[in-house]
Amino acid sequence: MEAVKNKEEWAAAPIGVFDSGVGGLTVAREIMRQIPNERIIYFGDTARVPYGSKSKETITRYSRQIVRFLQEQKVKAIVAACNTASAYALDEIEKELDIPIIGVVKPGAKVAAETTRNGRIGVIGTEGTIGSHIYSTYINEINKDIQVVEKACPLFVPLVEEGLWQDPVTDEIAARYLSVLTDSGIDTLILGCTHYPLIRSTVQKTVGGEVALVNPAYETARELKGLLEKENMLNNEKQGLGTERYRFYVSDMADKFRTFANSILKYGILSAKTINIENY
Amino acid sequence: MEAVKNKEEWAAAPIGVFDSGVGGLTVAREIMRQIPNERIIYFGDTARVPYGSKSKETITRYSRQIVRFLQEQKVKAIVAACNTASAYALDEIEKELDIPIIGVVKPGAKVAAETTRNGRIGVIGTEGTIGSHIYSTYINEINKDIQVVEKACPLFVPLVEEGLWQDPVTDEIAARYLSVLTDSGIDTLILGCTHYPLIRSTVQKTVGGEVALVNPAYETARELKGLLEKENMLNNEKQGLGTERYRFYVSDMADKFRTFANSILKYGILSAKTINIENY
Repeated sequence: MEAVKNKEEWAAAPIGVFDSGVGGLTVAREIMRQIPNERIIYFGDTARVPYGSKSKETITRYSRQIVRFLQEQKVKAIVAACNTASAYALDEIEKELDIPIIGVVKPGAKVAAETTRNGRIGVIGTEGTIGSHIYSTYINEINKDIQVVEKACPLFVPLVEEGLWQDPVTDEIAARYLSVLTDSGIDTLILGCTHYPLIRSTVQKTVGGEVALVNPAYETARELKGLLEKENMLNNEKQGLGTERYRFYVSDMADKFRTFANSILKYGILSAKTINIENY
Repeated sequence: MEAVKNKEEWAAAPIGVFDSGVGGLTVAREIMRQIPNERIIYFGDTARVPYGSKSKETITRYSRQIVRFLQEQKVKAIVAACNTASAYALDEIEKELDIPIIGVVKPGAKVAAETTRNGRIGVIGTEGTIGSHIYSTYINEINKDIQVVEKACPLFVPLVEEGLWQDPVTDEIAARYLSVLTDSGIDTLILGCTHYPLIRSTVQKTVGGEVALVNPAYETARELKGLLEKENMLNNEKQGLGTERYRFYVSDMADKFRTFANSILKYGILSAKTINIENY
């Protein structure tokens, strides 16, 4: 990485955010809300999406390529805005980096452990995230007495991407997936996939209003803000950010990405650029 | 490619069959049924599945890598057992090859054009296949008066992969997707995605018994058999094939692939080997 000339320039550098596709935009959205003065470079791996059904080796290889791309963009910190990548690749990649990288799993696990009153937490996510048992591992590191009930929900992502955010079919699938969690008497449920905040109301209705939902996207943006404050790396530029503030890259289907992104973000995405991530 | 020593040896070479994942196994199954004496090398690109939502450029690049891998295995012919790859990549790759390659689209289009009595054909498939309008292009080359009604069904693949082959949710989604086709008065429907034969009964029930379903997997195996006969390339070995006859390679998640494959194929798959397809 090219040497950064001074502290001020470093603070003005962008934050790199990546995901397998569009899901991580719910994390980017929270960062935009909580630290609106920051630049963001977002990468969505739309040529190889989804990550949730793939192996640790493959996800780690993909994540490493993306981190190399983001470093080339001279980011000051990286957010793995993907539960599967956070679960499988983060520990290994963290060791190889000289800038901070945070995932969505630890912040979500921490808040869930603080939230539960009866010591029973549910986690929903992709096959990869659930199969890794990463949430229960982190939660039980904080408090070994907490009982964690995990459930993979493979159809939620395609249902969200098909736009069925509020639909009887999504209700029916949610009822099937989530019954094991409500039967276990959980009082806290982690939305362990970045797509799930988009069907938050369906999930809340299914598990009942008394169950607290934890959105790791929100907690991750909070953690990122705290980290940048602590390291004195918050961007203090007062002007000149404008529409250049956010840049979006994908590995495929830039037009489709932009359409979906515009349905999630208030901020209109001007353009998304396609790169060949296999070259990194 | 290493020189083949003689005609007999060439005829004994395997057929390469590839798909984005498990869907192409319905094509492999038909080849196994119709020309049981042939060796098959199957490749499923499970690290980059699905293809149906990705672009022409990306699908062509992926298909080219797979073809290079199959040529390294010294196959005598290649079947693109994936509608999206057939739609996007076949014409270009065919020009670069010195062995025959056939896709699933042309055989399906041909039989549908022969089958319809009222000149109205429906086609269902992934976003990629439908967006390419490849079926209507081929059908209208055969008979420009045939009206083709196309409909993308993005949730069918995840529903099949979740095992909901016969399920009220699949019924409901099928009713929504297929109403535009039944309203158009089609008498013939092409199952334009290799996963769809697995929900054939749901589709038949939804469109009604009077609509003829065309399964391109079946027609492709027939076309392949005819091609090998014509070229005098059928395998005439009478023994020694045994369980070595079929070899399976994937780019990820070999165990999951094997489980799914065993639910489709009568023949028990002994093993599936993982390779890094990005290196080809």
